[in-house]
Amino acid sequence: MPHIFITDLKPGDKINQFFLIKRKERRRTRTGKDYLDISLADRTGTMAAKVWSEALDQFDPLFAEGQFAGIAGRVESYQDELQLNIERIKGIQHWSSEQLDLTGFNPDHLIPATGLDIPSLWEDLLTWVKEEIHHPALQALTLSLLKNNEEGWKQWPASKIYHHAYKGGLLEHTFRVVQLAREVVKLYPELNQDLVLAGAVLHDIGKLKELEGYLSEHNTYEGQLLGHLAQGWEMIRKAAQEISWDDSRILTQLEHIILAHHGQLEFGSPVLPQTREALMVHMLDDLEGKIKMMTDHIEQDRGEEAFTDWHKVLKRKMLKE
Amino acid sequence: MPHIFITDLKPGDKINQFFLIKRKERRRTRTGKDYLDISLADRTGTMAAKVWSEALDQFDPLFAEGQFAGIAGRVESYQDELQLNIERIKGIQHWSSEQLDLTGFNPDHLIPATGLDIPSLWEDLLTWVKEEIHHPALQALTLSLLKNNEEGWKQWPASKIYHHAYKGGLLEHTFRVVQLAREVVKLYPELNQDLVLAGAVLHDIGKLKELEGYLSEHNTYEGQLLGHLAQGWEMIRKAAQEISWDDSRILTQLEHIILAHHGQLEFGSPVLPQTREALMVHMLDDLEGKIKMMTDHIEQDRGEEAFTDWHKVLKRKMLKE
Amino acid sequence: MPHIFITDLKPGDKINQFFLIKRKERRRTRTGKDYLDISLADRTGTMAAKVWSEALDQFDPLFAEGQFAGIAGRVESYQDELQLNIERIKGIQHWSSEQLDLTGFNPDHLIPATGLDIPSLWEDLLTWVKEEIHHPALQALTLSLLKNNEEGWKQWPASKIYHHAYKGGLLEHTFRVVQLAREVVKLYPELNQDLVLAGAVLHDIGKLKELEGYLSEHNTYEGQLLGHLAQGWEMIRKAAQEISWDDSRILTQLEHIILAHHGQLEFGSPVLPQTREALMVHMLDDLEGKIKMMTDHIEQDRGEEAFTDWHKVLKRKMLKE
Amino acid sequence: MPHIFITDLKPGDKINQFFLIKRKERRRTRTGKDYLDISLADRTGTMAAKVWSEALDQFDPLFAEGQFAGIAGRVESYQDELQLNIERIKGIQHWSSEQLDLTGFNPDHLIPATGLDIPSLWEDLLTWVKEEIHHPALQALTLSLLKNNEEGWKQWPASKIYHHAYKGGLLEHTFRVVQLAREVVKLYPELNQDLVLAGAVLHDIGKLKELEGYLSEHNTYEGQLLGHLAQGWEMIRKAAQEISWDDSRILTQLEHIILAHHGQLEFGSPVLPQTREALMVHMLDDLEGKIKMMTDHIEQDRGEEAFTDWHKVLKRKMLKE
Amino acid sequence: MPHIFITDLKPGDKINQFFLIKRKERRRTRTGKDYLDISLADRTGTMAAKVWSEALDQFDPLFAEGQFAGIAGRVESYQDELQLNIERIKGIQHWSSEQLDLTGFNPDHLIPATGLDIPSLWEDLLTWVKEEIHHPALQALTLSLLKNNEEGWKQWPASKIYHHAYKGGLLEHTFRVVQLAREVVKLYPELNQDLVLAGAVLHDIGKLKELEGYLSEHNTYEGQLLGHLAQGWEMIRKAAQEISWDDSRILTQLEHIILAHHGQLEFGSPVLPQTREALMVHMLDDLEGKIKMMTDHIEQDRGEEAFTDWHKVLKRKMLKE
Amino acid sequence: MPHIFITDLKPGDKINQFFLIKRKERRRTRTGKDYLDISLADRTGTMAAKVWSEALDQFDPLFAEGQFAGIAGRVESYQDELQLNIERIKGIQHWSSEQLDLTGFNPDHLIPATGLDIPSLWEDLLTWVKEEIHHPALQALTLSLLKNNEEGWKQWPASKIYHHAYKGGLLEHTFRVVQLAREVVKLYPELNQDLVLAGAVLHDIGKLKELEGYLSEHNTYEGQLLGHLAQGWEMIRKAAQEISWDDSRILTQLEHIILAHHGQLEFGSPVLPQTREALMVHMLDDLEGKIKMMTDHIEQDRGEEAFTDWHKVLKRKMLKE
Repeated sequence: MPHIFITDLKPGDKINQFFLIKRKERRRTRTGKDYLDISLADRTGTMAAKVWSEALDQFDPLFAEGQFAGIAGRVESYQDELQLNIERIKGIQHWSSEQLDLTGFNPDHLIPATGLDIPSLWEDLLTWVKEEIHHPALQALTLSLLKNNEEGWKQWPASKIYHHAYKGGLLEHTFRVVQLAREVVKLYPELNQDLVLAGAVLHDIGKLKELEGYLSEHNTYEGQLLGHLAQGWEMIRKAAQEISWDDSRILTQLEHIILAHHGQLEFGSPVLPQTREALMVHMLDDLEGKIKMMTDHIEQDRGEEAFTDWHKVLKRKMLKE
Repeated sequence: MPHIFITDLKPGDKINQFFLIKRKERRRTRTGKDYLDISLADRTGTMAAKVWSEALDQFDPLFAEGQFAGIAGRVESYQDELQLNIERIKGIQHWSSEQLDLTGFNPDHLIPATGLDIPSLWEDLLTWVKEEIHHPALQALTLSLLKNNEEGWKQWPASKIYHHAYKGGLLEHTFRVVQLAREVVKLYPELNQDLVLAGAVLHDIGKLKELEGYLSEHNTYEGQLLGHLAQGWEMIRKAAQEISWDDSRILTQLEHIILAHHGQLEFGSPVLPQTREALMVHMLDDLEGKIKMMTDHIEQDRGEEAFTDWHKVLKRKMLKE
Repeated sequence: MPHIFITDLKPGDKINQFFLIKRKERRRTRTGKDYLDISLADRTGTMAAKVWSEALDQFDPLFAEGQFAGIAGRVESYQDELQLNIERIKGIQHWSSEQLDLTGFNPDHLIPATGLDIPSLWEDLLTWVKEEIHHPALQALTLSLLKNNEEGWKQWPASKIYHHAYKGGLLEHTFRVVQLAREVVKLYPELNQDLVLAGAVLHDIGKLKELEGYLSEHNTYEGQLLGHLAQGWEMIRKAAQEISWDDSRILTQLEHIILAHHGQLEFGSPVLPQTREALMVHMLDDLEGKIKMMTDHIEQDRGEEAFTDWHKVLKRKMLKE
Repeated sequence: MPHIFITDLKPGDKINQFFLIKRKERRRTRTGKDYLDISLADRTGTMAAKVWSEALDQFDPLFAEGQFAGIAGRVESYQDELQLNIERIKGIQHWSSEQLDLTGFNPDHLIPATGLDIPSLWEDLLTWVKEEIHHPALQALTLSLLKNNEEGWKQWPASKIYHHAYKGGLLEHTFRVVQLAREVVKLYPELNQDLVLAGAVLHDIGKLKELEGYLSEHNTYEGQLLGHLAQGWEMIRKAAQEISWDDSRILTQLEHIILAHHGQLEFGSPVLPQTREALMVHMLDDLEGKIKMMTDHIEQDRGEEAFTDWHKVLKRKMLKE
Repeated sequence: MPHIFITDLKPGDKINQFFLIKRKERRRTRTGKDYLDISLADRTGTMAAKVWSEALDQFDPLFAEGQFAGIAGRVESYQDELQLNIERIKGIQHWSSEQLDLTGFNPDHLIPATGLDIPSLWEDLLTWVKEEIHHPALQALTLSLLKNNEEGWKQWPASKIYHHAYKGGLLEHTFRVVQLAREVVKLYPELNQDLVLAGAVLHDIGKLKELEGYLSEHNTYEGQLLGHLAQGWEMIRKAAQEISWDDSRILTQLEHIILAHHGQLEFGSPVLPQTREALMVHMLDDLEGKIKMMTDHIEQDRGEEAFTDWHKVLKRKMLKE
Repeated sequence: MPHIFITDLKPGDKINQFFLIKRKERRRTRTGKDYLDISLADRTGTMAAKVWSEALDQFDPLFAEGQFAGIAGRVESYQDELQLNIERIKGIQHWSSEQLDLTGFNPDHLIPATGLDIPSLWEDLLTWVKEEIHHPALQALTLSLLKNNEEGWKQWPASKIYHHAYKGGLLEHTFRVVQLAREVVKLYPELNQDLVLAGAVLHDIGKLKELEGYLSEHNTYEGQLLGHLAQGWEMIRKAAQEISWDDSRILTQLEHIILAHHGQLEFGSPVLPQTREALMVHMLDDLEGKIKMMTDHIEQDRGEEAFTDWHKVLKRKMLKE
């Protein structure tokens, strides 16, 4: 039986197939009833799901957040959205390989991911760092941070919800900001091009510690309490120590770019950009993220009007045509 | 069978009668199901309605936004509000006049409208402009703009949602602001009375281009992208050209009143009021709109408490007694 | 039949027992259907309830806000919360004492209340005022206000929703702020200790006039229109008159503490704290309220995650462990 | 020797004549030098003045704030403004009547005052209250408050700096707001006209307790710590007690108008306007004050440009022609 | 005698040479003394100057704002800045050519101007429009607006104070934004490149009507009351009419870019950017302006510290090295 | 010749004595004139001073920021403040010990410092940490950070300007916050007392890296670009590594306290307090700093009015009596 993608589900459909468990929270209603509040995903999107009381204690031990799980249930309509009422659920470890074959289990169908070619983006990024960051220590630092975090960077999302919230999203976003930085900095020869490029590459590196990864919608414990600006800054300082690069004003300026890249105190930067390089990285990051949010919102709107629905973050409608 | 007004409908009622289609949007749930999201109206209010999938393709071509349509369906309760589940729907053009007679179709029952006497308001407005705006070009300009937009002005709402959101609402609001201006400006002889009156008459003229009209809840394409302040300003400049009035500081001051009448940049005026006349028109417009919102909210509240529910725009409860 | 507490109710339960009616509002849906919107309480929490149309006219006269009422109905699930669909309801005055005995009516089970020992808190407060406020008129004023409002103060909640929203909450909150003030002011001998203590005791006295009491979720008519800052200030001025204390700068400074204790104009204080004593009382009140809100939110969260759900007032998640 | 008005003084002028002492503060520079920082006034404006160290101890006892004083000194230019360097100064009690005659002392020349006819404004106000406030208790209350405060009300300024900051300013401002209210409320018959009129008359009555009066630029001790909203509210409650009017919802609504008349919490109202009458009084007060500020700024600007200088409160330039 | 540039002047210098009169305002001190408040310029900067009373009436008629004038006076120190005390001043029309020769009058020395090559920027701009805007009407519109405003555009400043406030500044800023747009839009093929380019070229065209020009620091009468967003929008609509381009959604989108290019209502845009093209033009304009402000501030700082003085618009210090 | 303290200087005084050079900046006026802008200090306060052009090149090499220097000059009055016009200046290294003896040089007179007993505060702090932080690693970490930074901590100011801006100020402020924390936390046994105490001790440790020290008014290079929140956080992580304490949730919560202690994003915390311990430390730090600012402002006000001058940070006047 082929996988029915989330975008193709309809109220009343009965399904029996695998999904990715992106979030699993045991909750209790204010009035005392336990249930599991679940966020399912496949390549085409995410969907809310619930396990209600009778089935709860039996199925709770059989699957975990971040796993694939086989699910039987019924699609219902709830406040204009579909929701899955789960009847049976078991994590992939409880399935034999014969059963998996029978169900046509295919993990590629179940994970939302960038449409871009990850290895090619990665190669481009490495090449640019090697060829276009001329300051030896800056180049060495940037390369070592890339290489030591390669596995995560190729897979991490760029954020939990707002933009690039899928596998490979962090690399896609990083790549786009670096692309912008390469073009724009040429027009500003008075800026330190090496710093701008290194800052563009590294600005969001702390996300690798802040987010649980592409299989989850949660922050890590440390990420929730410290935030990716501080975490990214520390990664850079540690990496600089490891290559014995110390006491350099250029290094401090790079650290400043990381801490200042949200641009305003009220957006979580503990310091304002005080160099043109920091302002530049902030503004290109902002440009990339906002254009991406508009593009996603326009593409996902299914109405036939000229304008989309209201966008809750950007606080506006957008023109579609 | 007489029309049952929206305020008299109850859950479980089955109906078969005409409504006005104020908004019709084909939407898709996030999970792929098409439906029509409709806003129905009659004289007494508006009500949400839906056409779900089976009936969708059959009925979608048979009616349009801004039309009257005959509707059969069942009233249901949804989140403390009534909603109509539509089973059959056909635009008025698909009905023979015999059928219309049989159903007792009466368009006067179906359109929310001002309770005031439109022709009389219009006559008063014309009289005041002729008698109380003494500056010849200002008077001529104001008169020509009134006369060339008479049809729309007698019908347009003053806004989509906030206040005077019904047929004739723009004229009602304009009339009220002009009434205020006439009384108040007498107490400020140092102000240019002609400018205040002309500004009061014309301040919202751009609404005629921004809004689709009283049969719709949508902005026009241009209205959404340009806004009624810029649109109204342009109408005035064009009209001035047509009467060959140019290069006058009084004309620029009138234009300033239009652009500045929201009073603050964050409310959409690209310039702050820099003349007393502009400040006066802004403040009277604001007074009229807010008192109207309070009056409507107090009248529509159906609880028995001394205070109303929370008003989302004014962010407060109000005393009813 | 023993009372089933609100925290133990489940969807589908049929119940027939007593509750406290904390709020009772006759409302009409936008489309004209009357119903009673009710907030029920027992010691363990509150729950929404509705009386729909058929039963409405029969039962509406038989019970009132602030009363205990015997209720028969069915628990339903509505937007992830339980809601009681009331079938029969009668205020306690319509029950014979035999019936009450049969049902095991016990008012102690029905009223949310502080867990602290009210008489003991009260004694401590009186003792502290007598022993630690050395200024004779300040002490006399504070004592007379305590004694003349003893009954209410031992019962009133500290707010309708945010914190200490239960019987005895006002005394609990007052006691906690005074406890803080006693410890902190020792470290600031340059402040007027008498004023800080009296201000801490009296800062929220206006709540006795603003709120209906612990049996209701409503403000009084005067409370809604004047607010507890002004109301508390007037109580102090009247009490000062009664003990013929007038024209004193210390008295004015105490009045200032009451009016300024919200700390900022935008939080409803008509004047900013202009003395250290006023700033101190404001900040300790703020500290006590916010820590309490965090404690309540952490304790009430039933998920198994390390972090709570979003807190709507404090606008953040909180760490639970 | 005739009085030379402040507007006619020039740098280098030596003068020897009387002024009003509106503010007298003994200050010390951060580096320890004592001086008197004085604000002088005559009918045409105010001017800064200083008494420096040598003369200080001799002259300080000889004059007081709120007095007329004979002053000898030299006009100097300081930061584009004139400032008087005082060489000798003596309060009026130290002058014989012959000396006063010789100097041509004329108190009418020395006090900034409204240009309007105070007795006539007062009569109009009384008449309107008697004829147009029909509710007996409201009328009685308003009349008694007017009569019991007649002396102050005919003399007080409406504010220290912003608008109507001169003798009779409070009556002028009150009169103007009432004039507006009378005209505007006619157009809103659904409002309680009595309440609007009484609110308009009484809205700023607390200024009589907040401000020292027209001879000073200081707040009173109580005014600084409590503010005129609370003070005005108390005056009304006391007056109501005196006429034994109690427990009336209309009275509470009048009190609400006083407390809410700044319109927003951040402007010092402890409650938002929750009645249309309160909103109306707030908006007319705001309109009157702002138009007055614009008029004053335009009239006082001495440049030849089409636009004035920047207005620091309204944060804009204004068109003069 | 060679011109001594403003950056080389010292307190105590006596000078006798030509300057540009960028601002000339006849003002009166609050205390009645007339003077001329003047802003002088040469290529290296601007300096405040004053003509005091004796010389005033004689010299006021002899020179005007926007003119070159020969000036004799003495440089004085005023609040850490130099100021010129003018003793004699005559506009250039009062000088014979022999006199001009003698003084070595050279207008190139007196006008602050871009350091870039204006004709070359202009040619590039035209070329890009011709080669890279493929939509015929958009290209024609953009070209006609450039050509019909060529003279002004080559000379106008981009703003009065904030950035590019010198001759040719508007073209320099426009050129830079277009340069950015050309590079950045390549990376976003899903955007309408023609619209982005046309929007980048035309976004500030209204400055030609808002500002008096490079010889003055004033807004025009219309510019002050209407603002360059509305003015620029009208220029585009008129130009579209002239090439008979009407009723096009692309045209409306271009108009939207102009009105939305300040990005937020509180910065004076009457509508938010609702297309990606409008957001892009806004963000590149913002980037260009802010980097320019930082560059100017860093270059003009004369301290020896690592960080500059506080920047009043960007509200921060900046790193210089 | 005895040192004349800054608070005792008067305009016209000629002095010849030692001061501390807290700030020394070579600046150029906008019009090109070099000067030294200096901030002098002695125990009683700070005073602005200038070295103008002739003396500049001779004296600039002879003294440095953070040094004592012998200064001859004349006290002048500038904008109501005293300013020293320096005629001769030489750093202490250019004086022989005989000269120093002759001048009565005494460094204790020249450094603004806390009035509290530093060694005793330090002992108390150590004792409290040892006795009241029971968690072994937390205690060890806190002790090691105290001991390794003892020298700086006993000397550093707590801020450059706002409060405790003098030698020993950081210890005084830390001590006061810890004192508060010890008393307050007793009343909240549900909080982790160890965390609150450790957080109170360490919250401002980053100031040791952010500020140059008590002899300077400058931030360090790193402090300006990174800020003391990030810097303090890193100090804690490094110290934890050194005692091999890792991977502990308690440690992360301590780190969270440091990063969150400004309480709001807009005050520079990159994360909001998400634990009660973090909220507690934030609020006690805020309380201590604000009460201190009020106390200082009240004590330093030299006027004779009941209220102080306006406080620019707290934006209010304060009552003095």
